[in-house]
Amino acid sequence: MDKQYVTGIDMGGTNTAFGIVDRRGEILFRGSISTLGYTRGEDYVNDLGNAINSLIENHDLKDKVKGIGMGVPNGNMNEGTIENAANIPWAKGVCIRLAAMMEEKTGLPCKLTNDANAAALGEMAYGAAKGMKDFIVITLGTGVGSGIVANGQLVVGHDGFAGELGHVRIIRENGRVCGCGRTGCLETYASATGVTRTAREFLELQPERESMLRDIQHRPITSKDVFDAAKAGDKLSIDVFNFTGKILGEAFCDFVAFSSPKAFILFGGLVHAGDFLLTPLKKAMDENMLNVYKGKTEALVSKLNDAEAAILGASALAWE
Amino acid sequence: MDKQYVTGIDMGGTNTAFGIVDRRGEILFRGSISTLGYTRGEDYVNDLGNAINSLIENHDLKDKVKGIGMGVPNGNMNEGTIENAANIPWAKGVCIRLAAMMEEKTGLPCKLTNDANAAALGEMAYGAAKGMKDFIVITLGTGVGSGIVANGQLVVGHDGFAGELGHVRIIRENGRVCGCGRTGCLETYASATGVTRTAREFLELQPERESMLRDIQHRPITSKDVFDAAKAGDKLSIDVFNFTGKILGEAFCDFVAFSSPKAFILFGGLVHAGDFLLTPLKKAMDENMLNVYKGKTEALVSKLNDAEAAILGASALAWE
Repeated sequence: MDKQYVTGIDMGGTNTAFGIVDRRGEILFRGSISTLGYTRGEDYVNDLGNAINSLIENHDLKDKVKGIGMGVPNGNMNEGTIENAANIPWAKGVCIRLAAMMEEKTGLPCKLTNDANAAALGEMAYGAAKGMKDFIVITLGTGVGSGIVANGQLVVGHDGFAGELGHVRIIRENGRVCGCGRTGCLETYASATGVTRTAREFLELQPERESMLRDIQHRPITSKDVFDAAKAGDKLSIDVFNFTGKILGEAFCDFVAFSSPKAFILFGGLVHAGDFLLTPLKKAMDENMLNVYKGKTEALVSKLNDAEAAILGASALAWE
Repeated sequence: MDKQYVTGIDMGGTNTAFGIVDRRGEILFRGSISTLGYTRGEDYVNDLGNAINSLIENHDLKDKVKGIGMGVPNGNMNEGTIENAANIPWAKGVCIRLAAMMEEKTGLPCKLTNDANAAALGEMAYGAAKGMKDFIVITLGTGVGSGIVANGQLVVGHDGFAGELGHVRIIRENGRVCGCGRTGCLETYASATGVTRTAREFLELQPERESMLRDIQHRPITSKDVFDAAKAGDKLSIDVFNFTGKILGEAFCDFVAFSSPKAFILFGGLVHAGDFLLTPLKKAMDENMLNVYKGKTEALVSKLNDAEAAILGASALAWE
């Protein structure tokens, strides 16, 4: 009998959510456990495996689940390992064979990858990249993540860690200091954090300009503040998004010269800024694209529901 | 019977060279025709096909040749076409179904791609990338070309034109004007032409520095002049290569963040500069690499013979 379901696991820094998913990308049944509160990976796997086994048995799906896909911070797809995930106590400073341990516990084939790669597979299986063989998912959150698909396959690299486009150095001279220890990385400009840095810079360097953002005191400005102000017509805030979109669009032109994707699919909190971000982004793509690629690559917004995308993306690994 | 030979065709702007190649990458028999002198693609294909058919028949290999691979300027691998190749009269401003026409003429399966992609396949089949599934070939000639392999497959993109790393914009502010109409592209710095531009700039902007290059008059400085001067100990010329290697090494760090290749394989005229180029290049890779990739990716020099590489690379397409 054809196995018509897969299990997707979204391992976050706090909670691990999972669900049983059908071929159309419907999450039929769900569950979750805490990611924290363990000192050893074995104990986490034991609890997670039991929870999943119960979910499958309770819904009488024992022979109908094809396998398990996991989206894991610092997940190495080639090795099936979680490697030195700094925020998870039981995975800090060690390399754990998570996929093999889950296989043993559940009796189901298990694959894992990092969150952005899982998002890319989710878009290909159920989302905006359905039918595409060449595209790039860019996640715009606290940082900038990426999942690259070429020839219908994830680009994982020789070591399993390909696709760190947030750390392509966009500004080589006097670029912003990045958490990675270098300067000028894309994510210091084109993330939620980057937007607030730009806003602070604009406020400081353009003291003559009025802005609603100047009314925010006694707490740090957030990217949502900048978005709200832009919606209310605040020119400085609109310029912050113009600057952000321009940098992102210029970076996309470089990425196109690499893998010539049919589309960029944007995902994550910053995408809620909508046209404030997308209009300057598309303009920069048009203006800076190498002739041979001009007008061929779209910038699309993910259609997957924020709350479900991570489980769906992880589950897509199990169809592969 | 197992077909143990392939035909490789290297279409250059002036001549088209071809050869029959065995599995180890030996070119057993060769031939060539002029690329120019035709007004219609049909006539070129007719002559080329006849020449290849004769070569095969004369050596009694009729049932032993598996197929034909072609390296073609502006070749589109997805479509099997040559598209608007400006320097070839019969292919200027048109799109010609070259692979299909060659199949019809020879009765053999025919695939084509551009020169840099063919070089990448050649390195994988017979050269420095044997056994690698993730690597990037960078050709350093008049311009900078690239062939990218990920998961053991060429990255060709949705339109067949992926891999224009020479046109990644390395310097976004006040970068050099590029032939593509934009500024700051890698090839304006890290090509043979880029080296001579750097030399001219250094001579002009550092008038106080002595250099053997100042003795060259009544003709333009070439990259070979700069290499010869560097070998003779000319400090300014050595600095030209230091500058070039640094820019190339920094660019490689960005490319690693994309596809995490096991190696870069360098090919083309500028590679003859040897350690003058490689030492600063490797230093820049070490200093600028994102931590997760540090020390993992090599910069290697192609081991394929310059004169044979293009035919071998093209022939490798036919094994695929």
